[in-house]
Amino acid sequence: MCRFAVYLGEEIKISSLVTEPAYSILHQSFHSHEREEPLNGDGYGIAWYLDDIAEPAILKEVHPAWNSLNLRNIARVARTRTLLAHVRAASPGLPVTQLNCHPFSSGSLSFMHNGHVGGFLQLKQRLVGGLEESTYLDIEGSSDSEHVFALVKEAWAVAVDSDPLDRLEAALRRGIERVEALRAEVAPDKPSLLNLALCDGERVVVSRYVSHDDVAANSLYVHSGRRYTCEGGLCRMLDPNGSSGAVIVASEPLSRDEGWDKVPENHLVCVVPDLRVEIKPI
Amino acid sequence: MCRFAVYLGEEIKISSLVTEPAYSILHQSFHSHEREEPLNGDGYGIAWYLDDIAEPAILKEVHPAWNSLNLRNIARVARTRTLLAHVRAASPGLPVTQLNCHPFSSGSLSFMHNGHVGGFLQLKQRLVGGLEESTYLDIEGSSDSEHVFALVKEAWAVAVDSDPLDRLEAALRRGIERVEALRAEVAPDKPSLLNLALCDGERVVVSRYVSHDDVAANSLYVHSGRRYTCEGGLCRMLDPNGSSGAVIVASEPLSRDEGWDKVPENHLVCVVPDLRVEIKPI
Amino acid sequence: MCRFAVYLGEEIKISSLVTEPAYSILHQSFHSHEREEPLNGDGYGIAWYLDDIAEPAILKEVHPAWNSLNLRNIARVARTRTLLAHVRAASPGLPVTQLNCHPFSSGSLSFMHNGHVGGFLQLKQRLVGGLEESTYLDIEGSSDSEHVFALVKEAWAVAVDSDPLDRLEAALRRGIERVEALRAEVAPDKPSLLNLALCDGERVVVSRYVSHDDVAANSLYVHSGRRYTCEGGLCRMLDPNGSSGAVIVASEPLSRDEGWDKVPENHLVCVVPDLRVEIKPI
Amino acid sequence: MCRFAVYLGEEIKISSLVTEPAYSILHQSFHSHEREEPLNGDGYGIAWYLDDIAEPAILKEVHPAWNSLNLRNIARVARTRTLLAHVRAASPGLPVTQLNCHPFSSGSLSFMHNGHVGGFLQLKQRLVGGLEESTYLDIEGSSDSEHVFALVKEAWAVAVDSDPLDRLEAALRRGIERVEALRAEVAPDKPSLLNLALCDGERVVVSRYVSHDDVAANSLYVHSGRRYTCEGGLCRMLDPNGSSGAVIVASEPLSRDEGWDKVPENHLVCVVPDLRVEIKPI
Repeated sequence: MCRFAVYLGEEIKISSLVTEPAYSILHQSFHSHEREEPLNGDGYGIAWYLDDIAEPAILKEVHPAWNSLNLRNIARVARTRTLLAHVRAASPGLPVTQLNCHPFSSGSLSFMHNGHVGGFLQLKQRLVGGLEESTYLDIEGSSDSEHVFALVKEAWAVAVDSDPLDRLEAALRRGIERVEALRAEVAPDKPSLLNLALCDGERVVVSRYVSHDDVAANSLYVHSGRRYTCEGGLCRMLDPNGSSGAVIVASEPLSRDEGWDKVPENHLVCVVPDLRVEIKPI
Repeated sequence: MCRFAVYLGEEIKISSLVTEPAYSILHQSFHSHEREEPLNGDGYGIAWYLDDIAEPAILKEVHPAWNSLNLRNIARVARTRTLLAHVRAASPGLPVTQLNCHPFSSGSLSFMHNGHVGGFLQLKQRLVGGLEESTYLDIEGSSDSEHVFALVKEAWAVAVDSDPLDRLEAALRRGIERVEALRAEVAPDKPSLLNLALCDGERVVVSRYVSHDDVAANSLYVHSGRRYTCEGGLCRMLDPNGSSGAVIVASEPLSRDEGWDKVPENHLVCVVPDLRVEIKPI
Repeated sequence: MCRFAVYLGEEIKISSLVTEPAYSILHQSFHSHEREEPLNGDGYGIAWYLDDIAEPAILKEVHPAWNSLNLRNIARVARTRTLLAHVRAASPGLPVTQLNCHPFSSGSLSFMHNGHVGGFLQLKQRLVGGLEESTYLDIEGSSDSEHVFALVKEAWAVAVDSDPLDRLEAALRRGIERVEALRAEVAPDKPSLLNLALCDGERVVVSRYVSHDDVAANSLYVHSGRRYTCEGGLCRMLDPNGSSGAVIVASEPLSRDEGWDKVPENHLVCVVPDLRVEIKPI
Repeated sequence: MCRFAVYLGEEIKISSLVTEPAYSILHQSFHSHEREEPLNGDGYGIAWYLDDIAEPAILKEVHPAWNSLNLRNIARVARTRTLLAHVRAASPGLPVTQLNCHPFSSGSLSFMHNGHVGGFLQLKQRLVGGLEESTYLDIEGSSDSEHVFALVKEAWAVAVDSDPLDRLEAALRRGIERVEALRAEVAPDKPSLLNLALCDGERVVVSRYVSHDDVAANSLYVHSGRRYTCEGGLCRMLDPNGSSGAVIVASEPLSRDEGWDKVPENHLVCVVPDLRVEIKPI
């Protein structure tokens, strides 16, 4: 289990999302509120996009976010309009390595996962056998998350004619379908929790998904407004739910201000470049 | 704040202390029971002595104990009669680096600290100015703990004629005295918490010290008995408090069995090679 | 490309092989003599066996051997009768991660590789598809070496009735056969260089293999004698080629003394518990 | 010994200096041309300034530059007008830790060093004793370089009324004077090599200094022109020595094009915001 947050909007300092908020991603790395096991100390990662450059910059380290000099020394000055941040609590048995840290990226795409694929070890070899060779060879780590990203990338590659947001949405839906079809076959009783974020630098689609009715999906919130601001340690969204200049989609609210809306289970959050938010059933 | 444990006795696998017990040092790295902030994820270290070799082997890493492949792959096979283990929660402002991880060592000595020196930054430069040059130059990190070890080493070096256990005891007492004299001068209102373990490979002296009456010392327990054993995940001391074949001194009980005795505040635990335990006031 | 060394014999300090010799594995990490590119700075690893314990202890780190405090602080005191040591120069495109460092291990087996599998990326997915599921799931990294070890382990598992040395030999031969059959099919023109070491704690088999007549195999040497000793920085084999109390098989001679014999190309070095050395064609 | 490079000019991608040039800093981390020992694998660091933000962003890692995913994933997209880059070969005896990696920073200042302070261990305690307490407490590592930076910072703090470039120059001169005065007293025969770079985000002053006539200073080059460009792996300065739109000061030429001028020994290179270069004797 992990925690993540995505930001789209007016340029902010990375620290505004990652280190400054009272319930920042960094804070959640040792005090998550909505998880039973409150610790996310098995590495962290951030991906941020710079204007006019398709690929994101990425910083990932295997030690905890809260003690990273690099995170502190980059987040306090680097600015971006599009940011993904993730703190990791390794699934039991999964090695803690930089290669298993999120976000994953490929060209302009970046991707994060909070949750796990039910019965992943039982379906892993079949999943891998069904991948295009080039997609397979791009996999560097061993996590379920990176393998789901492989499926998502293949779907994104074939959906080339769609509108860019439709393309992201189709890729995420198709990725969930493929991995869930495998899971339903080999491990029908093991639930999948797939809160996934897929971003192309200008748009983002985030899922809140659970495979079983009797299991709660991992939490997911959306927060939008005129502008997101951090002043003197106080972070908040100005004019929440008003004219949209900033959107945050996050595992947990980062701040105590109003306007953090829970995403319903088995729905997608789609955020377009003009920052309108659409919630759709999966 | 941190957690530590010292073992002397019949040869055990390192894992018996570090990973197997229900409340092992590794477990305490994310679920400490007797601290307000339950997380010790800023590195770990172990020092273990091998027969007929004066210097300890040492493994320290900056990432959390719970996800260290090296710790797991060494602890499950390496055996020792004398082991020190430490998980670290960095004091605010102190960098997380391998050089600030415990145990520290010098020749045959090894040393750990749980707590902090009150007003350390106010007295650091004076402390450093009063050290022998060679002791000063041995300091590689920046922690209060390593600087206290420098004072302890100087006292140990001059106490060369004493009985070896007296020498350890004298060195620990003198180290506490010197740092506390400085603290009393520059920061009389800031309490020092000095649970210190000093080992020469065959004997160990551990302090439970707090400078102020109205502040509680960090917890410290001693557990001794015929033999310490871990079988099927169940670790316990056979014949606790009986004939002595094993002694553990630890920040918290590692197991639920009987015989974990609280060390009184401002006392020293002295353990000799025949494993008798003596508790003395500081 | 990498460098490795295996030791079997009377108990030595790990430092005798790893740090003390003039041309130690550590030295080879920045000054290899028999490679065009003299640098092996992409991590290192050692595996050492302790008496009466089947599994090896393992230390691997992603930073260079020459600046590892842990390597220095363990090698100078830990002793063993059976040691494998490896310094890594990552193949182009292969990520540098602890998971790709050698030696690999599984139960009592340990394994190292110097060289590469020709056209590995072209055959990787097929190799993986042909593995037993449990062998596949044990793979944590992405290197060609770990995938060859998977094949070797499967062969070792089925050869359960053989004499232990025959079993190692059969496993190594069969592993080479399987990977080479795949390579010959998909990449007949790309040479494989497979200097492989397979150890069960008491015996070791090491191959010097190249697939193509017009390509030179990586170097491999064997050195045996009455006793291997390091005194005052001078390491040498006493009575080389005489009564056997110690055997070293290494990519390069570790010392300047006589008796380092070149292993012929496409041959195996088999070392039994009584330290007799047998050289056999592959 | 180490290698460094500073860039001021039109916005470039960090990769243009750090990874793309044939003789990039990254390349120099394993193939330095102008040093006897060609290896700089003990960590690396980059500091880059962003428009309108006083403090630099900093990335430092203890493993070699050539295998850093973070360096690759940030350098290929992040852009800057002011960049410092450094690869480190640790001085013998100095621990390899992130805290000893360059560049060092403090507020808007960043600082790098190539060389060493003669007899540093003999003068370290006295140097430390003479520092302001706050400057002393800012020191996190143990390197001679960070201690020289402490002296430079104190001089910069008092030179507050000067013109900003004069202030940098005065601070660098005064830092050299103070450390050299100490060295001359305790270790008159041990040469200091002080190639130092001090930057405030808009201006930079770099020294090429050696204390002894019979010792060669470390190399230093300056390269300026209309624009610095990397296309298809070919990096060069357009209109070298012409109208100034870009300046590089580096331990070694990064490219084979013309216009790399050797800085004379015991001189300073001063680069102002309009990119004029002035060479002055120390």
